Amino acid sequence: MELREIGEFGLIARIQDRLPDLPSSVFKGIGDDAGVASLTPGRDLVSTVDLLLEDVHFDLSVISPYLLGRKSLAVNLSDIAAMGGLPRFTLISMAVPPRIRVEFIDDFFRGFSEMAQAFGVSLIGGDTSSSPDRLFISVTLLGEGRKDALVYRNGARAGDDLYVTGTLGDSLMGLRLVQRTGRPTLAPEEKFLLSRHLNPTPRVKEGQALSEKGLATAMIDISDGLFSDLSHICTESRVGATIWTNRIPQSPALQKLVSASQSSGWQLALKGGEDYELLFAAPPGKESEIIALGRQWDCGVTRIGQVEPQTSGINILDENGPVDPELLKGYDHFARPSPPENS
Amino acid sequence: MELREIGEFGLIARIQDRLPDLPSSVFKGIGDDAGVASLTPGRDLVSTVDLLLEDVHFDLSVISPYLLGRKSLAVNLSDIAAMGGLPRFTLISMAVPPRIRVEFIDDFFRGFSEMAQAFGVSLIGGDTSSSPDRLFISVTLLGEGRKDALVYRNGARAGDDLYVTGTLGDSLMGLRLVQRTGRPTLAPEEKFLLSRHLNPTPRVKEGQALSEKGLATAMIDISDGLFSDLSHICTESRVGATIWTNRIPQSPALQKLVSASQSSGWQLALKGGEDYELLFAAPPGKESEIIALGRQWDCGVTRIGQVEPQTSGINILDENGPVDPELLKGYDHFARPSPPENS
Repeated sequence: MELREIGEFGLIARIQDRLPDLPSSVFKGIGDDAGVASLTPGRDLVSTVDLLLEDVHFDLSVISPYLLGRKSLAVNLSDIAAMGGLPRFTLISMAVPPRIRVEFIDDFFRGFSEMAQAFGVSLIGGDTSSSPDRLFISVTLLGEGRKDALVYRNGARAGDDLYVTGTLGDSLMGLRLVQRTGRPTLAPEEKFLLSRHLNPTPRVKEGQALSEKGLATAMIDISDGLFSDLSHICTESRVGATIWTNRIPQSPALQKLVSASQSSGWQLALKGGEDYELLFAAPPGKESEIIALGRQWDCGVTRIGQVEPQTSGINILDENGPVDPELLKGYDHFARPSPPENS
Repeated sequence: MELREIGEFGLIARIQDRLPDLPSSVFKGIGDDAGVASLTPGRDLVSTVDLLLEDVHFDLSVISPYLLGRKSLAVNLSDIAAMGGLPRFTLISMAVPPRIRVEFIDDFFRGFSEMAQAFGVSLIGGDTSSSPDRLFISVTLLGEGRKDALVYRNGARAGDDLYVTGTLGDSLMGLRLVQRTGRPTLAPEEKFLLSRHLNPTPRVKEGQALSEKGLATAMIDISDGLFSDLSHICTESRVGATIWTNRIPQSPALQKLVSASQSSGWQLALKGGEDYELLFAAPPGKESEIIALGRQWDCGVTRIGQVEPQTSGINILDENGPVDPELLKGYDHFARPSPPENS
């Protein structure tokens, strides 16, 4: 069925019909001029927005509508996770080209709703429109936390240790595999890496635990690549950093398949994007507590370096010494018109 | 200067540099993974999002970047106004084609910031990307109010009176004038009507006054046209309505220029969109209080009809009796691929 058969209000009604019941914290969801909802008393508002544009951020020949729905919310959940916040409410804008069918929208919202339910998030608002050509999605995610307990980019101090959750480089390797073969392939390692690209797991409970226990001094989610996101922490905290490439956690699948690639695993980790793991700094005395906490997490946690004085800059050290940072920069949507390897 | 010369992070820094200082309620604005801000204790969160897509919602040969910036926020302010809420914080997503220059972005944010400051709103988050072709803007606006005092679409009761703020039909007539002449024209009435289309004033203080005084039982902002937006109130409130066309307020400029058009003024008011006036229902005993309140507003207020039982449906009455509702429907972005007269 085509969208024009049900119209804009029909589409909104269809989305609304498929949503789970709203919790008592939502007084008014979709269907009025604005949504009305309550934060937990005493908590501050944490808010983020991410846009996903067809052929810039995703390719519909690679990602299914269901996974696109999941990922549209996951990238925002990752931002709230990076503050140590609790995600609560979401709003979505979609401009939809005429070729997109109603079934696509159904699958998209099935994925979106599953991700929302898994993280306790309610859809409370949105706007839809036709689009002459490309599918455009903008998702706003609202969460909560205590402003003094949330973790920012600017709190890292020289002498702090640097950690990451999970493994890095999987997402970029997964994207390269599918770009190389043209279609999703079926070897188990390839499926794993592709799934890390298409279906990332935001580290919400991990970020919250670090915030609640007061362990992290600065935190960011790795969306642009480890090097690029580390640079943001260094800039905002006015510090430098050292990363040891042999400490960067790599999945067994990446280690197995990386030999087929021109890059080594740590290069993929450093310049790759969309890992949606957390990078954080913590005082040196907290290492045993952090490692113990990481054992409770499926993704684990790894110390990969340390914070240095600002004058030291950012140093990436492999077994032979410093690596040229120019090789490791993340992707800038404006600077490079056709991204070679990032989505 | 082209956007690729400054890059995505350069653009964000440039926007950030031009923003006014943040109020104490904003703990973290643009530049971290998420914004952190505080609502007034005891208030609930009111949230809305609107998307504006080039060649669907706006035409850059008609609207300047400065006015587009103002209008991008104004349409959201109007949604918060329609709840009787107080706007507080905003987030913006923009996908920008390569032909757009940095100066365009500067002008856009000058307009956006002026509108934000005029209504006490702070920009606390955003996301930017390149776009292969069209400019895409999605603005989220967060506000506050007490959920029991806010005004919804579903509270109208048979016997209530129906009111609108300001004058209707100006925006559609303004758009028609510029579409007819190709360029903005300079006769004072034409300038007024075009300005009503390009530079609408959201009725925030009017909506808040109606909410605070408990005068309105249902309220909506007129963005799709009086007939279409009245239908939303009737559907949600399970009521019917009568509108008297001779009561629909028309500006002197519209009355003067409408004779040159094929439609009469009330037809433009009923089917036209983007007036961004408020339509609300109120108990009959409140008329004198509402009219007195309206005298304090620049835009004024007019009683245009009454709420009927649901079985009566929606009746538009002119001097000759009922008007055919089929002639009066608003614009549906999906149902009509090329809108004849709405932007």
